Amino acid sequence: MAEGSVLSASPPHLPYSGIATFARAPIVQPDGDWRADVGVLGIPFDIALGFRPGARYAPRELREASLRYVPPFTDLAGRTRMANVTLADAGDVVLPSLEPELARERITRAARQVKARCRIPVFLGGDHSVTYPLLRAFHDIPELHVIQLDAHLDFTDTRNDTRYSNSSPFRRAAEDLPNLIHVTTLGLRGLRHDPEAVAAARERGHTLVPMEDVEARFDEVMTALPPGRPVYLSVDADALDPAVLPGTSSPEPDGFSYALALRVIRAVVRRHQLLALDLVELAPNLDPTGRSALIGARLIMETLCEALDD
Amino acid sequence: MAEGSVLSASPPHLPYSGIATFARAPIVQPDGDWRADVGVLGIPFDIALGFRPGARYAPRELREASLRYVPPFTDLAGRTRMANVTLADAGDVVLPSLEPELARERITRAARQVKARCRIPVFLGGDHSVTYPLLRAFHDIPELHVIQLDAHLDFTDTRNDTRYSNSSPFRRAAEDLPNLIHVTTLGLRGLRHDPEAVAAARERGHTLVPMEDVEARFDEVMTALPPGRPVYLSVDADALDPAVLPGTSSPEPDGFSYALALRVIRAVVRRHQLLALDLVELAPNLDPTGRSALIGARLIMETLCEALDD
Amino acid sequence: MAEGSVLSASPPHLPYSGIATFARAPIVQPDGDWRADVGVLGIPFDIALGFRPGARYAPRELREASLRYVPPFTDLAGRTRMANVTLADAGDVVLPSLEPELARERITRAARQVKARCRIPVFLGGDHSVTYPLLRAFHDIPELHVIQLDAHLDFTDTRNDTRYSNSSPFRRAAEDLPNLIHVTTLGLRGLRHDPEAVAAARERGHTLVPMEDVEARFDEVMTALPPGRPVYLSVDADALDPAVLPGTSSPEPDGFSYALALRVIRAVVRRHQLLALDLVELAPNLDPTGRSALIGARLIMETLCEALDD
Amino acid sequence: MAEGSVLSASPPHLPYSGIATFARAPIVQPDGDWRADVGVLGIPFDIALGFRPGARYAPRELREASLRYVPPFTDLAGRTRMANVTLADAGDVVLPSLEPELARERITRAARQVKARCRIPVFLGGDHSVTYPLLRAFHDIPELHVIQLDAHLDFTDTRNDTRYSNSSPFRRAAEDLPNLIHVTTLGLRGLRHDPEAVAAARERGHTLVPMEDVEARFDEVMTALPPGRPVYLSVDADALDPAVLPGTSSPEPDGFSYALALRVIRAVVRRHQLLALDLVELAPNLDPTGRSALIGARLIMETLCEALDD
Amino acid sequence: MAEGSVLSASPPHLPYSGIATFARAPIVQPDGDWRADVGVLGIPFDIALGFRPGARYAPRELREASLRYVPPFTDLAGRTRMANVTLADAGDVVLPSLEPELARERITRAARQVKARCRIPVFLGGDHSVTYPLLRAFHDIPELHVIQLDAHLDFTDTRNDTRYSNSSPFRRAAEDLPNLIHVTTLGLRGLRHDPEAVAAARERGHTLVPMEDVEARFDEVMTALPPGRPVYLSVDADALDPAVLPGTSSPEPDGFSYALALRVIRAVVRRHQLLALDLVELAPNLDPTGRSALIGARLIMETLCEALDD
Amino acid sequence: MAEGSVLSASPPHLPYSGIATFARAPIVQPDGDWRADVGVLGIPFDIALGFRPGARYAPRELREASLRYVPPFTDLAGRTRMANVTLADAGDVVLPSLEPELARERITRAARQVKARCRIPVFLGGDHSVTYPLLRAFHDIPELHVIQLDAHLDFTDTRNDTRYSNSSPFRRAAEDLPNLIHVTTLGLRGLRHDPEAVAAARERGHTLVPMEDVEARFDEVMTALPPGRPVYLSVDADALDPAVLPGTSSPEPDGFSYALALRVIRAVVRRHQLLALDLVELAPNLDPTGRSALIGARLIMETLCEALDD
Repeated sequence: MAEGSVLSASPPHLPYSGIATFARAPIVQPDGDWRADVGVLGIPFDIALGFRPGARYAPRELREASLRYVPPFTDLAGRTRMANVTLADAGDVVLPSLEPELARERITRAARQVKARCRIPVFLGGDHSVTYPLLRAFHDIPELHVIQLDAHLDFTDTRNDTRYSNSSPFRRAAEDLPNLIHVTTLGLRGLRHDPEAVAAARERGHTLVPMEDVEARFDEVMTALPPGRPVYLSVDADALDPAVLPGTSSPEPDGFSYALALRVIRAVVRRHQLLALDLVELAPNLDPTGRSALIGARLIMETLCEALDD
Repeated sequence: MAEGSVLSASPPHLPYSGIATFARAPIVQPDGDWRADVGVLGIPFDIALGFRPGARYAPRELREASLRYVPPFTDLAGRTRMANVTLADAGDVVLPSLEPELARERITRAARQVKARCRIPVFLGGDHSVTYPLLRAFHDIPELHVIQLDAHLDFTDTRNDTRYSNSSPFRRAAEDLPNLIHVTTLGLRGLRHDPEAVAAARERGHTLVPMEDVEARFDEVMTALPPGRPVYLSVDADALDPAVLPGTSSPEPDGFSYALALRVIRAVVRRHQLLALDLVELAPNLDPTGRSALIGARLIMETLCEALDD
Repeated sequence: MAEGSVLSASPPHLPYSGIATFARAPIVQPDGDWRADVGVLGIPFDIALGFRPGARYAPRELREASLRYVPPFTDLAGRTRMANVTLADAGDVVLPSLEPELARERITRAARQVKARCRIPVFLGGDHSVTYPLLRAFHDIPELHVIQLDAHLDFTDTRNDTRYSNSSPFRRAAEDLPNLIHVTTLGLRGLRHDPEAVAAARERGHTLVPMEDVEARFDEVMTALPPGRPVYLSVDADALDPAVLPGTSSPEPDGFSYALALRVIRAVVRRHQLLALDLVELAPNLDPTGRSALIGARLIMETLCEALDD
Repeated sequence: MAEGSVLSASPPHLPYSGIATFARAPIVQPDGDWRADVGVLGIPFDIALGFRPGARYAPRELREASLRYVPPFTDLAGRTRMANVTLADAGDVVLPSLEPELARERITRAARQVKARCRIPVFLGGDHSVTYPLLRAFHDIPELHVIQLDAHLDFTDTRNDTRYSNSSPFRRAAEDLPNLIHVTTLGLRGLRHDPEAVAAARERGHTLVPMEDVEARFDEVMTALPPGRPVYLSVDADALDPAVLPGTSSPEPDGFSYALALRVIRAVVRRHQLLALDLVELAPNLDPTGRSALIGARLIMETLCEALDD
Repeated sequence: MAEGSVLSASPPHLPYSGIATFARAPIVQPDGDWRADVGVLGIPFDIALGFRPGARYAPRELREASLRYVPPFTDLAGRTRMANVTLADAGDVVLPSLEPELARERITRAARQVKARCRIPVFLGGDHSVTYPLLRAFHDIPELHVIQLDAHLDFTDTRNDTRYSNSSPFRRAAEDLPNLIHVTTLGLRGLRHDPEAVAAARERGHTLVPMEDVEARFDEVMTALPPGRPVYLSVDADALDPAVLPGTSSPEPDGFSYALALRVIRAVVRRHQLLALDLVELAPNLDPTGRSALIGARLIMETLCEALDD
Repeated sequence: MAEGSVLSASPPHLPYSGIATFARAPIVQPDGDWRADVGVLGIPFDIALGFRPGARYAPRELREASLRYVPPFTDLAGRTRMANVTLADAGDVVLPSLEPELARERITRAARQVKARCRIPVFLGGDHSVTYPLLRAFHDIPELHVIQLDAHLDFTDTRNDTRYSNSSPFRRAAEDLPNLIHVTTLGLRGLRHDPEAVAAARERGHTLVPMEDVEARFDEVMTALPPGRPVYLSVDADALDPAVLPGTSSPEPDGFSYALALRVIRAVVRRHQLLALDLVELAPNLDPTGRSALIGARLIMETLCEALDD
């Protein structure tokens, strides 16, 4: 296929039926000859987390869940969204077993290929360690901002003898990418924060927003960044309250409601230029009710609706 | 048995013990010789839904869950409720495999029989398609109102080549029942609404309340209907937030809290004449924690407490 | 794509990774311009069964499980099989909600299209009712034989008021297809057999082999049919012992071991001309260990190895 | 209802539908005015086991599973069984929380009542401790034999400071019931046997058959007892191989196949006079595939077919 | 080991690794020669509850979950807590099978031993019945207060023929312990309250706070008790909203959010002298997502942080 | 503790109670001052497998399961085994996140330490990749034999771009350890064998026994090795039939029954000198019935009974 095609208006398949590509998008190769508004890439890599595995299953489950949310969408007011948006599904990065460095190289390469072919890449993790190689694909953005929804800072230098775990992606990215000038982290909570990581993030001028302050400081935080900035949005599934989204390795109570997460994302996307979105740390195997993947897929769609709304 | 007997004041069985009828009510035949305040009828029919089956298990699981909520009830203030209420359990409609039209006929017939023998029938679905044949049993009510708690409008003309799916019950009922003069739908949300269905509902003057407006417009919506109207109350399990009630085919985040659902139901029941209650789209197989059926059963009991309070 | 391509010799993806087509086969349309040795078609239809739903999930889960069994295969003796076999995945039949007759028409049509484009179609059910419309696609075979592995006869005239349930596919096929001259059913067991169905099958000269006789009568049964006959092979997941394959609606103890099922299939395929294979009644949602889908996918592959061996 | 009615020949309900009594038998009170061939009594008591609870759920789940096995049954040879058998479901013993002695008294009383009203009582445990109070209901049989299928001897004097656990039912019964003259235990296996219990059982002349000897010594063991003896049959779910029946507190590998268990039961029932049957230690909550309850229910039905065959 | 050692600052094990003691604390015998700030004791007893068992698994699962929360903790502001706190894990009370009175004796004895060796004992239930024998270990406190977070009053005299179920711990304690002068119960809700128990509690002057009043009456309730009182804090898992913590026998909707539970606990601990904490009725087997145990363990840690903060 | 103590004859804890060390053995440090007959070491490492993770949970679950099998054991014949055997539990290797080479170093070091302090080390994997670093601890055995029960050969040079996956442990060991002179692999089956690996193993003279030949060639294979050889026994959970042991990443049907596995192990252990035992690839998270860990723990115990029998 030469190009991400416009989706047919009435996809006939029931959600449990048909080969599952993201929202019924055509399949493309990351380095193929295609162009689309949105390019989806899966990164089924979860060997860098330190607790409960399962994020490797997320790309496939998010594709399946997305079949309940195939655009276009019409709201109660009759407004139709994503009617003319093209999507393409670039499949998953072909990852090695076990070889973390090789894995990171391949992730960066595939992300670059997808990024070059679409307006907004959507990356389906994987654990949060994949955000480091993903961000490397954005080394060419003059001033790169990250907005991160997360219970944890993930700016730790070393954890359990590794520098590349899911606790460190932004630290490694900050070291490697001079253009990564700022990270805003919203939703921090939990008993233990790595003091060195907190200090290092603050020294770089990062914005750290504890969960309990997100609502109160909403306008302040959302307007702290000058408008129009290129923003990479990284959503860790554990940002959400585990009552809402229990399928994640390291749940922490008192997180984002779905509505608040959406409010943050919409504010970011409206004000800035969305470079890319990743959704990481979703472990569908830990949620037998299936709602974690459904909610994850819907959050992605809502983000795209907002970002691609004209 | 000739009559729904008053429940014994202290049922001796532990909830996991004994043959499970609804709240230990005596078993009756839908067309038998009995009278009761409340008649319970199960409709284990779920072949009309388009996603995850399991609502066929709901009548049995709701009966089992109801054993934690056997009346009478005394609240902290010492007020006793449902002390003199009679209940009867009319079992499940005997349904065919696969033959949808025959199934609908039987549902309507059994519903009529139960309706003729009690003050308030309680219908245990089944997917939401069963509300259409259930409503047909109320063709003799001069001015029939429906109040529907639901994430979805379910007023679609045709979906996936059928006019009888769980997306269409109110459309079919509106076509068939001239006496069905109004539907109030509370809790609408989700990415996609069928524009034709929304327009058709609005043209009929239905009241459509998005989830995010339920609290703000509570008094307005609750008093829009003149008091004392006969109301059929239809509760779709997906009206509730999936964090509260995850066992449903098509969960949508940001739904009713239990308290808000109860507040709506109480307001409706106090102001109007409750003709019947259905609880549909509960899929207990999708919730291994068991709380979905427990909460569904309790919601039914709370509704009855309110409706039968003297 | 114009043609089912030869599979690459070393598929790089790990089984949990990549978009899941059957054994990484290219995606085709049932009525597209392609040719392949094997064409795979899913039929996610399970509303005709009378007990526990879930077979609708089987096509997708079998595709995912097949990723552990991507040809070519080399055995311990160094013999390589399916090295030059082409596979194509024709996706799932686009099924309506609820409309059984329309569903059957579409199944027959899609099966005919796939059959016309490959040597051996593989049909992924669905409950066993789908075998009736599938067999209709073989109305043009002069003398059609069916070999059925099944705990149940599935030759019942009417069950629970329907003639089209998963208890009746071979009865309906026998009525409709004059060319369907014989059915051999192996693995019959359970407490209750429909006497009318047994008598009707025997009157037609069908061969009924109880499970306990399969091994003892193996050679007799396997040579009863003259060699070289065109055979449609229908494997009901409940033929297998539920200890081996628990994910099925209506398990019956004391069924086929995997080895015995394979022995039967190999004997059939070597002696006769395999027209098509279906695997039905697999309900992966009923087996949280995941082995039911894995074993189902492997059984399909073993059958193909045998049938396509040169 | 005055009497256990003959079952209707064609029960219309699908198995997941209708209020679940055992095989759709009418509900009776243990001490009511009824007579039936078979009387079913549940004992949802599992606080005497020392490992994984859940047997309290077995009576209800066995009733639900029995709905797949509603008599009469016709086999492939056209022979119909249980056509004229009457069944009655006496519900569950009303048990206290926690008070073991009171629980045992009530179990014995209800068992006596059921025994007085039917030819063959079927007792649905509960853990194996309930067999002691059940056996007390048979104090009036002049020479009482027990045949026990079990991985464990359950003849321990004291375990973890109690004399009434599920390891001791036959020890307590032997002490209390002078008429209990012999126990045959088949299927013994596992790493550890209580030496004192083994010695005590042997001193009383009990027959202890290790699992690995059951087939080899089949005829010897089955004919050791003079024919026509009154036999209480006690089937512990862990007698069966956990691959066949995983839902049990203390599974031990290498147990009875379903076929061998059935062979033993048939031999016993044909040769002797079946006084009663209990099925204990089934923990349906430990088997999400649901097959444990289905197999348990079917085993009961097969036993009744054999015992009531004329 | 002679003494609860100070925890090493950087425990090297990943949470799923290593032998699980509470927060990696050293193992001690309840009556051994040790001293620590915190002594942990498990009481895996759940035969006194009347619904769904599983609390017997809570001590082990809470220990495993605690490994994500090993002190010391540093918050975002850089404040470090529990840096110099010593913990000791006294294992589980050695309980008999089935013998409730003996069980209660052993629980009281072990609790006394732990209490004598640490500043704050932490008791891991078990169902709520264990709080009665636990409170007996505090018979020597001149004026003992209990603060209870619970959906249910648990002050019932007799339920289902026993006086020792999980509905009665505070009634029995009030009878036995003259020094137990007051109970504050927060979070009461549900359909049915035992009128006799409510009256008896009120007659004794207990404070009963319905869930819906907790926030509104927060300051009033929290300051009702004169400051500095010795308080035994008893947290029933069902106090929390089942969306937050679904793993409990008897969930009731509309409970404590995690934040509100923490707010209450912090207020109590800051104002009074925390004698001990118990967490009961956690049934991890009822929550396959694992978050119930994780949240329970974190709640304990937060309580200790607050209580041991200097 | 200075020494692995003799186990007390009657451990009082119920299996679900108490801190779980292997068979209630005392906890030791791998490099501590202790001696025991058996030293247990866990290796919770599963990032080298290519399919379904979960073996990281096996050491902890095997310890819990072992509590049902605490020695000494008495068989039906009155023979007592392991009465005077000392066990010590050395906990788990402290593993890094993600750094495979460092992980392998630590595994080898800890294995050497344990090996130096006991007669028979028992290693609890982890995926099968850990057997390579474990075998390195036996570099000092002049002529090292491995007997491997496994569905797969695990002698692949490179898979998915890594040389250290769970497909390669014996290849790497063979390269590194000149003293590793022979591997016997029993139970090989499945569709695909790596031809290069098969050839390489055969060239080294390894013995490859397909599953279907194990019984027929039992005596031949068991006596092929001269008696008295030092043997490292490596048991992959997928050697067993998945009906018996479903909790494993890559199940293959038609595997070892428990009895046959035990027969092989006993024959090996009686004839040779058991150097060590590992049990790998057990994924307890994939088996909600819990029997996989129970059977794994029992298999270990049976092996020790045989090896330590005097």
